[in-house]
Amino acid sequence: MATMDEIARALGLSKGTVSKALSGAEDVSETTRKLVLEKAVELGYARMVRSGAPKLAVLITNMAYERPEDFGYDVIIGLRKAAQPAGFDVEVIPLTAQIQAQYRYDEFMLLRGCRGALVLGLSLRDAWLRDFETCRTPAVLYDNRAGGNPNVTHIGVDNDEGMRMAVAHLRALGHARIGYLSACRGSYVYQQRYRAFFRALRELGLDDRHTLAGRAEHTSECLQSHLPRLLAQGCTAVVCSHDMLAHSVLIHCAERGVAVPGALSIVGFDDIPLCRYTVPPLTTVRQNRAELGKSAFYALSCQLGGVPISTLLLHAELIVRGSCGPSPIPAEKEAQP
Amino acid sequence: MATMDEIARALGLSKGTVSKALSGAEDVSETTRKLVLEKAVELGYARMVRSGAPKLAVLITNMAYERPEDFGYDVIIGLRKAAQPAGFDVEVIPLTAQIQAQYRYDEFMLLRGCRGALVLGLSLRDAWLRDFETCRTPAVLYDNRAGGNPNVTHIGVDNDEGMRMAVAHLRALGHARIGYLSACRGSYVYQQRYRAFFRALRELGLDDRHTLAGRAEHTSECLQSHLPRLLAQGCTAVVCSHDMLAHSVLIHCAERGVAVPGALSIVGFDDIPLCRYTVPPLTTVRQNRAELGKSAFYALSCQLGGVPISTLLLHAELIVRGSCGPSPIPAEKEAQP
Repeated sequence: MATMDEIARALGLSKGTVSKALSGAEDVSETTRKLVLEKAVELGYARMVRSGAPKLAVLITNMAYERPEDFGYDVIIGLRKAAQPAGFDVEVIPLTAQIQAQYRYDEFMLLRGCRGALVLGLSLRDAWLRDFETCRTPAVLYDNRAGGNPNVTHIGVDNDEGMRMAVAHLRALGHARIGYLSACRGSYVYQQRYRAFFRALRELGLDDRHTLAGRAEHTSECLQSHLPRLLAQGCTAVVCSHDMLAHSVLIHCAERGVAVPGALSIVGFDDIPLCRYTVPPLTTVRQNRAELGKSAFYALSCQLGGVPISTLLLHAELIVRGSCGPSPIPAEKEAQP
Repeated sequence: MATMDEIARALGLSKGTVSKALSGAEDVSETTRKLVLEKAVELGYARMVRSGAPKLAVLITNMAYERPEDFGYDVIIGLRKAAQPAGFDVEVIPLTAQIQAQYRYDEFMLLRGCRGALVLGLSLRDAWLRDFETCRTPAVLYDNRAGGNPNVTHIGVDNDEGMRMAVAHLRALGHARIGYLSACRGSYVYQQRYRAFFRALRELGLDDRHTLAGRAEHTSECLQSHLPRLLAQGCTAVVCSHDMLAHSVLIHCAERGVAVPGALSIVGFDDIPLCRYTVPPLTTVRQNRAELGKSAFYALSCQLGGVPISTLLLHAELIVRGSCGPSPIPAEKEAQP
């Protein structure tokens, strides 16, 4: 591990200047600061944090986390619950576009004295998504991947397992033709869930023709064009890519007089707090948020222990509420094509 | 957590009998022993190990592990290296058919005073494969899955990433038609690799017709019928499901005068110690065995910490040796169908 002296020597600067640049002092030019940070990252310098406990960061963007009903809230609590007994401090940092423009991830972590980060909410539009393909500081990305970088781990729920549970539940209720609705077409996790749904149909011996899927950028398109198309094909159940979409489908069905679950069964995905309050309450696949946070700590421990893990997935859990019921089509009739 | 008293009360036995049954004493009938063990597992009894350090087990079957060149050897060392600093003892236990017939997994772990196990080499023929679908004691299965049991974690290398690296390497060398050979058709991990190979072809924009795969139970069938078929289709490179098969293909090509890598490039999977000694040395996707062992410890820690993880995958690594070279077909010619 490099020292400040080595960085100073490599750049022909004084140790004082290097120290100032690394601590973010104001009387160092932007050019020098950048130069020092880049060299420090290159040489593998790790800043000592004087206060004692090693630090981990939660970098959060595009995701609410301040209220107990926000998705990020329990994730952060989970991470803290696992990290603190192991002697780590956890700092929560909103990941602004400005930070992403000004620093590379490695530089930012070095400046903040953090050994690794859980990154929540990163989207395809975020500048750092590319940065994670080459970074050296351990990073755990929730529901995102970054090429084959050995320093980055993907965490999430086991979408294959979850979709299989959802489809198996519907099949046990007698549903033979099950449709799939998905918004947010481009995102990594929604592509995963889409594939997982059709794999589940195949593995459970159900009709898996691809016209049973309706995917769009926006919810409105799912409701206006895809849902009627699925119903016209004889679907008696629909699995949705995420709970918010499932809730929109519930509302839409109520408005159009489609009885749920009498005429149509609906399954969501995520188990956001809202699900128990919809009418009827939504059957869904749970992502346990506190466990996600804890698993992020184990993934970071693994990386900090020198074990380059690519993927860590939580077991899924099906939460059965009121939005699914027996298929309205008798089994005999379904057997005929 | 239940006590011996509670087990004794629940069964109407003396505490002494329960204690004897749990410690494997000889003067307890088989029926009583079974009864006590089942009740102990049901009530969540955890046997105290007097010697102090908590214990983990490596249960190993169908896999060599005693010599440094055996696959299991480094895995066990890796697990020990991660477990011992954390205060755990690791016991290696050959998992015989007799053990599997006599006990359920939970009972056996309770008798041995182990809190969790890494299970190596389990095959579709092993009686315990079903047992892991319902067990309560944490188990980490290498290259195997067990339904959706929250107490069981699957570990392995990221086959998707590995296949993508292999195919990308061959594409960069100008290969446009790449075949796939696989023996051991039925096993979980070989199904994964087969799918991963075709996904990589698709994602990298290469010819992905399914006739480019040759799968069989035995190596001889791969060599005699599938390999000639792939060559007849114009394949200039072949990816193999595992190194032993790749080595057989190398030998077969040498016998038949097919130059490797002049006429055919070959990639293996696993990076067993043999690979650097084949002629030519084999380019392959590495499963880092020591890191697999370490990651098993992190997976068990995660389970023991109450976080039910389904999957933990290591990053893959492509080891470039001499068995791949530029495509013998000029790029212009390949562009034409």
